This record gives sequence, C-alpha cells and structure tokens, in this order.
Amino acid sequence: MWNIIRTFYERSVFRTSERAGGSLSEGPSLDLSGKRTTFSRRPVFRILLLTCTLLASLQLRAEDGYRLWLRYDRIDDPSLLAQYSSAITAMIFPTPSPTLLVARNELLDDLGSMLNKKLPIRTSLADNCLLAGTPMTSPVIAQLLSSKYPGLSGDGYVLHTQQTEGKHLIIIAARSNIGVLYGVFAFLRLLQTHQSIQDLSLSSSSLIQRRILDHWDNLTRTVERGYAGASIWNWHLLPGYIDQRYIDYARANASIGINGTVVTNVNANSLVLTPLYLQKVRALADVFRPYGIRVYLTAKFSAPVDIGGLKTADPLDPAVQKWWKDKCDEIYSLIPDFGGFLVKANSEGQPGPQTYGRTHTDGANMFADALAPHGGIVMWRAFVYDARPQTGHADADAHKTAAIDSDTHEIAAPDRFKQAYAEFTPFDGKFRSNVLIQVKNGPIDFQPREPFSPLFGSMPKTPLMMEFQLTQEYLGQGTHLVYEAPLFKEVLDADTYANGKGSTVAKIIDAAASGAPLTGMAGVSNIGNERNWTSHPFGQANWYAFGRLAWDHTLSSRQIADEWIRQTFSNQATVVSALEKMMMASREAVVNYMTPLGLHHIMGFSHHYGPGPWLDNASRADWNPVYYHRADAYGIGFDRTATGSNALAQYQPQVRQQWLDSNTCDEKFLLWFHHISWSHKMKDGKTFWEELCNRYQSGVDTVKWMQQQWQSLTGLIDKERFTQVSMLLDIQEKEAEWWRNACLLYFQTFSRMPIPPGVGHADQTLEYYKSLHFPYAPGSGGSL
Amino acid sequence: MWNIIRTFYERSVFRTSERAGGSLSEGPSLDLSGKRTTFSRRPVFRILLLTCTLLASLQLRAEDGYRLWLRYDRIDDPSLLAQYSSAITAMIFPTPSPTLLVARNELLDDLGSMLNKKLPIRTSLADNCLLAGTPMTSPVIAQLLSSKYPGLSGDGYVLHTQQTEGKHLIIIAARSNIGVLYGVFAFLRLLQTHQSIQDLSLSSSSLIQRRILDHWDNLTRTVERGYAGASIWNWHLLPGYIDQRYIDYARANASIGINGTVVTNVNANSLVLTPLYLQKVRALADVFRPYGIRVYLTAKFSAPVDIGGLKTADPLDPAVQKWWKDKCDEIYSLIPDFGGFLVKANSEGQPGPQTYGRTHTDGANMFADALAPHGGIVMWRAFVYDARPQTGHADADAHKTAAIDSDTHEIAAPDRFKQAYAEFTPFDGKFRSNVLIQVKNGPIDFQPREPFSPLFGSMPKTPLMMEFQLTQEYLGQGTHLVYEAPLFKEVLDADTYANGKGSTVAKIIDAAASGAPLTGMAGVSNIGNERNWTSHPFGQANWYAFGRLAWDHTLSSRQIADEWIRQTFSNQATVVSALEKMMMASREAVVNYMTPLGLHHIMGFSHHYGPGPWLDNASRADWNPVYYHRADAYGIGFDRTATGSNALAQYQPQVRQQWLDSNTCDEKFLLWFHHISWSHKMKDGKTFWEELCNRYQSGVDTVKWMQQQWQSLTGLIDKERFTQVSMLLDIQEKEAEWWRNACLLYFQTFSRMPIPPGVGHADQTLEYYKSLHFPYAPGSGGSL
Repeated sequence: MWNIIRTFYERSVFRTSERAGGSLSEGPSLDLSGKRTTFSRRPVFRILLLTCTLLASLQLRAEDGYRLWLRYDRIDDPSLLAQYSSAITAMIFPTPSPTLLVARNELLDDLGSMLNKKLPIRTSLADNCLLAGTPMTSPVIAQLLSSKYPGLSGDGYVLHTQQTEGKHLIIIAARSNIGVLYGVFAFLRLLQTHQSIQDLSLSSSSLIQRRILDHWDNLTRTVERGYAGASIWNWHLLPGYIDQRYIDYARANASIGINGTVVTNVNANSLVLTPLYLQKVRALADVFRPYGIRVYLTAKFSAPVDIGGLKTADPLDPAVQKWWKDKCDEIYSLIPDFGGFLVKANSEGQPGPQTYGRTHTDGANMFADALAPHGGIVMWRAFVYDARPQTGHADADAHKTAAIDSDTHEIAAPDRFKQAYAEFTPFDGKFRSNVLIQVKNGPIDFQPREPFSPLFGSMPKTPLMMEFQLTQEYLGQGTHLVYEAPLFKEVLDADTYANGKGSTVAKIIDAAASGAPLTGMAGVSNIGNERNWTSHPFGQANWYAFGRLAWDHTLSSRQIADEWIRQTFSNQATVVSALEKMMMASREAVVNYMTPLGLHHIMGFSHHYGPGPWLDNASRADWNPVYYHRADAYGIGFDRTATGSNALAQYQPQVRQQWLDSNTCDEKFLLWFHHISWSHKMKDGKTFWEELCNRYQSGVDTVKWMQQQWQSLTGLIDKERFTQVSMLLDIQEKEAEWWRNACLLYFQTFSRMPIPPGVGHADQTLEYYKSLHFPYAPGSGGSL
Repeated sequence: MWNIIRTFYERSVFRTSERAGGSLSEGPSLDLSGKRTTFSRRPVFRILLLTCTLLASLQLRAEDGYRLWLRYDRIDDPSLLAQYSSAITAMIFPTPSPTLLVARNELLDDLGSMLNKKLPIRTSLADNCLLAGTPMTSPVIAQLLSSKYPGLSGDGYVLHTQQTEGKHLIIIAARSNIGVLYGVFAFLRLLQTHQSIQDLSLSSSSLIQRRILDHWDNLTRTVERGYAGASIWNWHLLPGYIDQRYIDYARANASIGINGTVVTNVNANSLVLTPLYLQKVRALADVFRPYGIRVYLTAKFSAPVDIGGLKTADPLDPAVQKWWKDKCDEIYSLIPDFGGFLVKANSEGQPGPQTYGRTHTDGANMFADALAPHGGIVMWRAFVYDARPQTGHADADAHKTAAIDSDTHEIAAPDRFKQAYAEFTPFDGKFRSNVLIQVKNGPIDFQPREPFSPLFGSMPKTPLMMEFQLTQEYLGQGTHLVYEAPLFKEVLDADTYANGKGSTVAKIIDAAASGAPLTGMAGVSNIGNERNWTSHPFGQANWYAFGRLAWDHTLSSRQIADEWIRQTFSNQATVVSALEKMMMASREAVVNYMTPLGLHHIMGFSHHYGPGPWLDNASRADWNPVYYHRADAYGIGFDRTATGSNALAQYQPQVRQQWLDSNTCDEKFLLWFHHISWSHKMKDGKTFWEELCNRYQSGVDTVKWMQQQWQSLTGLIDKERFTQVSMLLDIQEKEAEWWRNACLLYFQTFSRMPIPPGVGHADQTLEYYKSLHFPYAPGSGGSL
C-alpha cells in the first residue's frame, strides 16, 4: 500500500506539477516531448522556445480524463507543428446555423490550441486558408462537390485540398450542416493523430443511419449496469440547470458520428412521459440539436395506465392508441426532432402487448402509427424470453425444450438461445416502415463471446438494428481493460449466408444486402458522472470504437485503436505500439479467463460480478449458470444440435455446417453448441479438460503481460492515468486469477482430472469462492 | 433557452479557449489579468512576456471547480509576483516523515505554479530562503519556537520572517509534522490572497481538537441528503483502486485544518465492520494519514446481531461487550490511528441501548471501553426523539406535552424541541472520558435559523461536540447560494449564560469555559462525486468555512468569505466586494423566503424539497409542518413558554428572559417560542401578517439583488462557473418565489388578511402548489 500512496504523494493533480512528460520533482528537464528540439536557430527564437516549453511544463495539465479523445494539446512535433501552421493561416467559415456555429468554434478553439495561434476569420479567399461549409454557404464548395464528389450523401463530408484563384485551400465540405461538423472533427483528428494534410482528397459517409447510445439510466440517477458513478442526467436540476457535461457529451458524440441518444433505461419509467419530465427532456434536446443528436425515450408499455388514467394499455384499444398519439403530439410540440421510442416489451418483467394477448407487431405498430406523422421511429427490442418463472422441469411451452442432462442437473427449460428468433421471425414483414427491431449481437446476453444472433439474416423484410453493449456488464465491469472493437467486428464480419456467401451481419444491418430503408446501431452506454466519464480510462475506447464503427464498420479494430491512442494518450511510437498490442489482445484475454471455448453466462447472480458457475437456485432455470454450462461427469457444454435444443437450426445451412460437428466446430464456440466430453480431443491434441485449464491460464497470462506492457510505458504516460491504469490492471489480474481458480476448482468436481502443469493452482478452496458475497456490487439494485 | 445554449457554444471547457480573463473568440487582447503590464524594459523581455501571456491565454484552464480553493494559479499581479519571487528563492525542507514529504511537495508544486518557477531545495541556509520544519528537523526552528513561541501547542504553526546569519529567512514552523503541513497551507494562502509576506510573525493553533466531516454516505454510494452526485467513496473498488479524489480530498481538508472524517452514514450499516470492508477502510486511512486525517466509522448498535452471530446487542451483556472489544482490536490492528465511532442510537428507527432497556450511558460507555485501550473516542449523537409513531393526541409520556391548539389542530405530541435535553441531561458526568456528546446546533434539525440547542451549557461535566450541517438539506439543497458561516457564527457566538455572561456556545465546545479534555466540531459533508465536489460552486465555501471555523471560531464570516473568494475566484477588488456582499446576505435571504420570523420545519415531506406548510398526514405528528407552525384563525407559532410546552425552561434564566415575552423576544426567533396573533404588533409597527408577507418578499428581493450582483461580474469570472452560477441563481429566484407564494397562500387561509402592497402575488393557486410531487428528489430514497 505504501508504494501506491507514495506514488500519489508524488502526483499532484489539481496542482501544477503535472505536465505531459513528467513532474517538477522529477528533475530539471525543460523538454516536453522527450525529444530534443533541433531547429533553434536564432537566440530570440531559442529563448522563446525555452520559455514556451518552461511555461508548458508548469501549466496545469490535469490529465483527469475528462477531455476524452478531444484533448487538442499543442502539436508536440515541432516540424509537424510548423508544417500545419504554415498550411493553415486563416479560415473562411460562414455560420448561418447553430450547427455551423458550433463547428466553427470547435475548429477555431481546437486549432488555436493545437497550433498555438489564433486564426483570423476571413470572408474572401486567401492563400493557405481553410474553407468550411456547404454548397449553400460557398460557391467554391458547391463547385467542388458537384464536380468531384457527386455521390456524397447524407451527413457525409469531404476533406479536400486544391488551388483556387492561385490560392492553396483546405476545404471541409458537406451537403448538410451536420456533415460540416463531422468534417471538422475528422480534420481535427488528422492533426491530433499527426497525419499529413498536404494532399487531401477524401470523403466519408456513414453506412448506418441511426447511430445511437442507449443509456440504461434511471430517473433516480442510478444506472443499471453502470460502473462509472451516477447518471450524467441530473433530472432534478433540469431544465433550469444545463450541466457542462451535456455540451461535452454532445461534442464527444458528434466527433465520432453518434447522432442519437436514448436517455432513459429500457426498464422504463412512465414518469418521463409526464409534462414535468418532458420539459427536462426538451432542455437536453435543445442542447444536443446543434450537434446533430436526436433525443429518444424509452416508452413503458403500461404508461397509459401508469400516468394516463386508462384501465388498459392494450395496443388495439382505440383509447390507448389515441393516448399514445396525443402523447406523441405533445412530445413533438416540445421537441420537433424527437427521435422516437425504444421499447423493451414482454421481457424480464416489463409489460408489453402479450400482457393483453396481443403480438409484438400490434405493440410496435401502435407506437409506429403514433410517431409516423412526426417522422419518429420505434426501436423494438428482440431481447425477449419467457418471463414466467421456470421450475426445474420443462413447462408446457411451444418451444422445443433443451435436452435433459443425464444425472447431475435436471433442467429442461426451453432454450433461451432460441426464443428471440422464435418470437420474431413469424412477424417478418409485418412491422410498419418506421420500426426497427433491435437485436443484441448474440442470442443470450452480451457475453464475452457469442455467436451472432440467428435473427440476423432471418428477417429479410424487416430492418434489424444492432445492439452492442459498451458497458462491461459481463466483461469485467468497471475495472478490466477490455477493448471491445474486436468483439463488435467479429459479429459484424460474421457471415450469415442469408443471401449467399458474404452476407455479413454488417451488410444485413447496413442494408447493403437487404436494402432496408431504415438502419441503425445502438451501443449501451458506459458513461457516468465520474470525472473521466467511463471510470476505466480504456472504457473511453469502447465508446469511441462504437461510434467509429457505427459510422463505418469497415474500419479495422486496430485502426480505431491507433486513432484513439494517439488522441487520448500520445503519438509516440512506443506508446502507440504497446497500447495497441494490449488493446488488441484484451478481448481474447477476457474470454479466456472468464468463459473460454464457448462457455457462457457463468457469472455471479444479479450483479453479474465475478465467477459463479455453481449457481443453481435462481427463480428461473435460465438465470442459472448450471443451465448454460451443464457440466456433469461426462463433460460440459450446451448441446444445441439436433440431439439437443437444435438452436443451430435457426442458422442458414452454411453457418450450421460450420458449428454442427464438435470435431470441426470452431473451438471458440464449442460449448455454445456441444456437450463435450472432458477427454474430447482438441485440435492441438490436448484433452478438452487440459485445453480448458490452459485457456484459463492463458487469460491470466495475457493480463500479466498487459501489466508488463503498461509498466514499460513508465514516464511516457501522465502520472495520474498511469497510476490509475496500473491499479486497475492489478485488480484485473487478481480477478482473472479468481475466475480461473473458482471455475477450474468447480469444473474439476465433475471432470475429476488434475490441473495440468503450468496452470496456476487456486490458493483458496472452492467453498471459499462460493462464500463470497457482494451485496453492494454496482450496476444493480441501486448501487453505484 | 436559446440564450443559455448559445452561451454554451461560446464556452469550450475541455478545449483551449478558456482562460482566466476571457476566450479566444472574444478578441485579440493578449492580456491575462485585464491590467496592462508596465515593466517591459528590454525587447527580449518583452517578447518573453508576450509569449508567456499568449501561451497562458491558450492554455487549458478548465475552471470546472475541481481544484476548489487550492488553485494556485500564477500570481496575476506582476509587482506582487516580483516581490514574492525575490523573497523566495530556495527552500530548506527536510522530509523524514510522510507528512513532511507531502507538505514539501505541496509547497514546491504550488509555489512553482504561483511563482512560475522551480525552487531549488537546499540543505544549508541561503538568503531569501524558505525554511520549513519542526524543532526535530531544524535547530533554527528549535531556537525560534523556544524563544519566541513557547506557547505554541499541538498542531499549531508559526509563520515567521527573520535574519539568521545575515540571511533573510521565511520560516514555517511547528512542533508536529502536521503543524508544518498546516503552516504550509497557511503560507500558501497568504500568497493566494495576495497578502504581504515581508514581516511575518504569526502563530495559530486550533481551539477544537477534533475537526471532523461526517459523511452520510451509504455503502451503495447513494448519499443521504447529498446533492452532489454519488458518494466519493467507491467502496466496490477499494482497496485496490485509490481514486485521485481521495488524495485531493485529504489535501483540501488538511488545507483548512480538518483532521477527521466519518466515512459512513449515521443511519449505519453493520457491513462496514466486516473484514471485507475494513480492508477498504484501511486503504482510505492509509491515504489520509500523511494529511493528518483520521478515519472514523459509524457503529450500528445492532452489529453484534447483524454480523456477529449474537442473539442480542444489549450493552450490558458480556458477550456483546467482548464482541465490540474484539472488533475494536481488529480495527486497530489494521488502522492504528483509527479515530473511533459515531453512533446514532435510538433515533429515527436506529437501534440503541433503549432497545434493550438500557440507557445512553450504558451504550456509549460500552463503545468507550472497547475503544479506550487504543485511544479511540465515541461521538454519541444527542439527536434523539421518541421513535414511536405518534397519534394525534398525547401519548403516555414523561415529557410535558405541548399545548393543544384551539380548534384547528389537535396535535398534542410531546415537544420534540425538548427531547434531547430531557434524555441527556440526567446523564451529565456519567459518560467515560473518551465520549463526546454530539449535539446539532439547534433543537430541531438544521433549519435555516434555530435558537442554539439548550443542551449547550446544560451538561457541564460532559464534553459536547457541535454538529453543523454543511449539506443544504433545509437550505435550498443543491441549487441555492447560501453561505453558512453566518449561521455557524450565530450559534457559536450565542451566549448560554451557563457560567455567567459570555459563556458562548463556542466557549462551551472549545472547553475554554468547561475545561473539557476532549473537544470537537462536526460538519455533515456536502461533498459528492460531481466534478466540482459540491455541485453548487458556492457549496465549496461552506466546506471551507466549516474547516476554518473549526480551526478558529473567532474568525469572522466576512474574513472567511474574503479568503475563500480570493482563492476560489479572484483577487480583483470588484469580484471580492460583490461576492462578499452576496455571500453575507445569502443566509438571511434563505431564512426570509423559507422560514422567516421563527417559522421552522415547513418543507416538503421526506425529501424536504420545497414548501409544504400544509402537510399533516405523516406517520408521526412531529414530522408534520402543521405541528411546528400551528397556524390557526388566531395566529401562528409554537408556544414554548410556560403556557405551552415550556421548552424555554431548558435555557438559563438570562436566555429565557430574552425570548419569554412575545413583545420583547428577538423577532427572528418569535414563532419558535410564541403563538402570535396575525395582528400582533411588530417592532416596526406593522402587523405580524404584514411583516410575514414583507419578510417573504424581502427574501425574494435579496435573491433578485444577488442575481444583479452576479451579472455585474460578467467577464470577471471564468465562463463556465459564471454560467453555472447564473443558472443556479435563476433556479433559486424561482424557488424563492415558490416558497413565498405557497406559504403566503396557505397561511392566508388562516389569517384571512390581504397580501400587502409590494409583495408579489402568486401566479398559481394553493391547490397547484399542493399538487406538486417530486418522487425522485435527490438525497432521500436512493435518488441522487
């Protein structure tokens, strides 16, 4: 402990010693970047430079993480700074709209900071001038777009350099105002990541229309599955008090192309639809509008009863339909660009159309009809499974039940894996055109690894929207460094074969394959009111990656990591390289130390913190880890082939084929589909048990390696974040061992096989691990 | 709304345009302070100066409030900067202890920042050298203290300038290491507030030993009566993760002399005493120790049952006594300087000794005996009142019941005012020597104005500890600017006459009068995890004022405000003068627009937000506003003279005499002690009703005036905080009118008298005000 404390004494965060390259107490160096500057030619220049550097070294540089990837510090490569500075000497940026105004101010402020100068604003062309706008605000831009970028669409943007009237221009252009804002952020990103701006000729448009953050934030300001403090929405103080965070939230989202926010929890509260709260929502919408971000709300299905005084919420009841229509009229009178509703219906206790003997179509279309006149949409979640408590044995259910496991567990509930598909595919093509079905990436629930949901590709006449989870409910919560882009990409790049080979999930949702008129991607937010937004500094990377992928899912995980690191930490090659390696390895690490080889849903009950593979007493069978891993004396895994639940039948034959045979099935999905003998021979020749043990160990080893990588960056990262991540990696390492120890001890009671050499042994008994309780683990039950 | 939004666009907080005096977009001025610098003699110097100023203007200066009063920005008065800089050219500061190490680093960093230079550390005397330490670390200091400050005691400090061996020295000296840290902060304060450091000869010691913040923070991270986000204690991540806030919290507290923190809610949770949580508490204690801050915990009386497996928590049961003794041994093995327990027993549903037929003495002494071997103390709260639900009529109670009010209300519950006195005075002298009885400043519960608690001065053989509430439960919660020092001072300076004239409350608690060996002052914290700690920027002033007064209650409110403003906002005379006036007026304003003339406890139920004088259906009579104001056709107010509850008898005769006669009673306490006719003639000749109306209006008027004062500072305050406080003052103004309107409309139903001219009329009906509900108001029921 003393070492940690001592490190802290040597830090001083809201004091003055913090700077990019070290602290006052570290020594007399005046150099900020660690490189010696080499172009001090004249004495005055040298004095200037020294002074600047000295001042910079003394300035308050609290790297508390609040600035996210929008740090815009002075370019610390002198030759690059000189290059940029001579290329940008003025700007032309008419601002006839609020969006163009915020875009211009962003550009002015951030360039001012990065280039260390105030750019003059001109109205006529000048050499080395930055010209930004739309065809409406500039004939040069009108000409450029029509001649060179005729296909530029929507809120896409162009960054282009050219000579006009003998003057070198850098042009940020778009057809829409929001496009200009996106272009501004893209241009700033080039500078922040030290890219060349000399010969620009690039354009970018999004492949997905609705790029949305879903906040599972309650009106109490607790956050379901939130690990970053309280909700950033201070409902009590709205509308009178506009927290600066709202602005910075909007800026951060706009910078990565996110254009919508569902501000309330899917486990909804009707009260947000009352006039008192709608005034508050309106205030948020007013803040977000210039940044191109629409506000959405979650609609509680029972709202007409809860707050409307009706006796029913039956979607076919005309009074109910009128109530929602009136409610939508009221909302749009306050928020003309209101986005629409996200609805969790008939799922985990939430009311829905089935409560009244109606269908998902009846429910979704009722909302759709009320929203349609105003241009609003419905995002209807496909995350449904029979909400009735299940007992040990099969209930009278239309679904095929899972196989009964021999002697150890008698669970025979329907396979939850299959339920969304079973409930939704019958309604394909029956939803209104302003309905999106929002589907979680996998069939269960945001596990470290899931096969893609079989719904993707199975509803060709219905627009499907992707739901990813940024908050790390099952990925180490607030303390594990897990970069999620590889997880997102794995799903997006998975081939559904829905329209033959190459029908990736990405193509299903971006409508390139299906031609759906409405497209969307949602990410369940990992944002709270902790100073750095996400608590774990690397949680910011997942927010960033989600936005970037929603904008352009063809980007690679590595490319996004590279961008994010440079903007968030440093452009130094050592830093970029080490962090990129860590980030790229981190997702496979968490899979390995938590749920290798296709294990899933074996975490602690309710709060989902830590391992709990032994849990078997939840009120529903399919809330129990034992339901999912089905370990017994023979082996482990959930048989989802024809001898089991046959969930595999929900996939296209080509997909099914990949996973059908336990000997050829990709081992990373093995236990998702097969009940495997402990002595099953794996591709590397080891037994399954040995492989399982090795995978757990490998996960732990990767975390240890990540710790080393991080430590190798001592002195290259600001002290506050360096210490912070060091502590978090220590927790992650301990918890990885905890997972390994608890799971292997438990599974060993079935396999009765020895832990192979090289795999760490548990320092506690299984009983000890079973005895651990965490009544106030955050993210559930009102704990933060 | 557009104006607010627009203001935001022009702000850029985690961007670069923020600086002390304006933003990039405001114009080409290069000057930071608003004054023209005049001493640019040589060209190079001029260039340097310009460069510095330019850089400063571009540097990130996010005035998000996180830095509190510890900003230590560069001294912006050039001649003063030059003066300071030439007076301090090096320092001698040996650091043989963690405390001296943090003290030195603080000094080094903060002087580095304020003087814009790195001070060399020397080991031998030099001219213009700063020498810091204790007699142990420096013979010069040993000599100084013994010769000139022999009376310096405890953690007191000395700031002294002298010539030694022909060298000019500035000496920061103390007998203890913590005293040196306090001296460092006092010295830094001189510079931050632009005081002279030329001829220093001052010493300061605290009059109160235990200067403690009480956190009503739950293990879930919700905060009872908290209005600043979640608890700063992230229990789930402790001990592995040390939030930077913990360090900065310790620094801030040490800077004002606070030396203890009760980290858990008085409505306690036994779980914090389990080994899992004690490890977390230990980690906090380790962080705080070098800053001289001890950790205390709240002890739930039923812990031996809750977590100890015992059948009883009877304080006379030997097994219970042994359990607490063992628990204390366990705690001290982890935290050798653990402070002790704060206990809320037999109050508002909390268990206590009376649960087992025992007395407060039995309970407190049991803890005292367990803690005594380790040097720990017990803070036993006197905030008790019969917890049994009361019905309309008097219950069989030993206490004298309050008079039954004529025809309107038939309440005849015992007077809650009297209960702490009734329960505690019989035990005077019966508590162990390591017990402090912690008494709220007034007899009810932290109202905008209360007479001092009659316990002060009534337990001469028992050390009493003051409990103030910093969090504004009854003072506008998160949004009202109310500077509390005048409230604190009013109580501290009140004369109890316990030992004749001049026996002020302050003298009772600082033991000057009573000679008590143990002294203490507690402030219920207003701190949360919002970026600026207290949500309202002026909430910081209350934290600051509490610390300063706990250190030295002879300081004036104005003096403390002056210090705080200069450190927190600016040394500019216009700013200091305007803010000081606002702050000094703010407490009387809240009294007037909420509870003028002695009204009390007439706020909303449970959450205590907004006016609710009509409330009469709480489960206890004394939770109802009607119980306190007793308005009827005749008049209003609680008769606490001999014709009523006779609570006045609990005061010394001289005090009683001041308040006994409704015609001579200080009108600010009138309704605390008298049931007054609506037409009662006030000292200014008006009827009581007119006066009441005028006072409400006057409260509103003061807030409007505060708004004007604040607006007059446009451009002199950083934009983020300026906008923030502007919005908050707007809310305060609306809520002040709400209070006026709702209360006057309601009381008018009794007085049946017209609203006098000049008093604003309500724009809503009484029914409207009664209809308002705030189910998720923060600070209660798990809402944040």
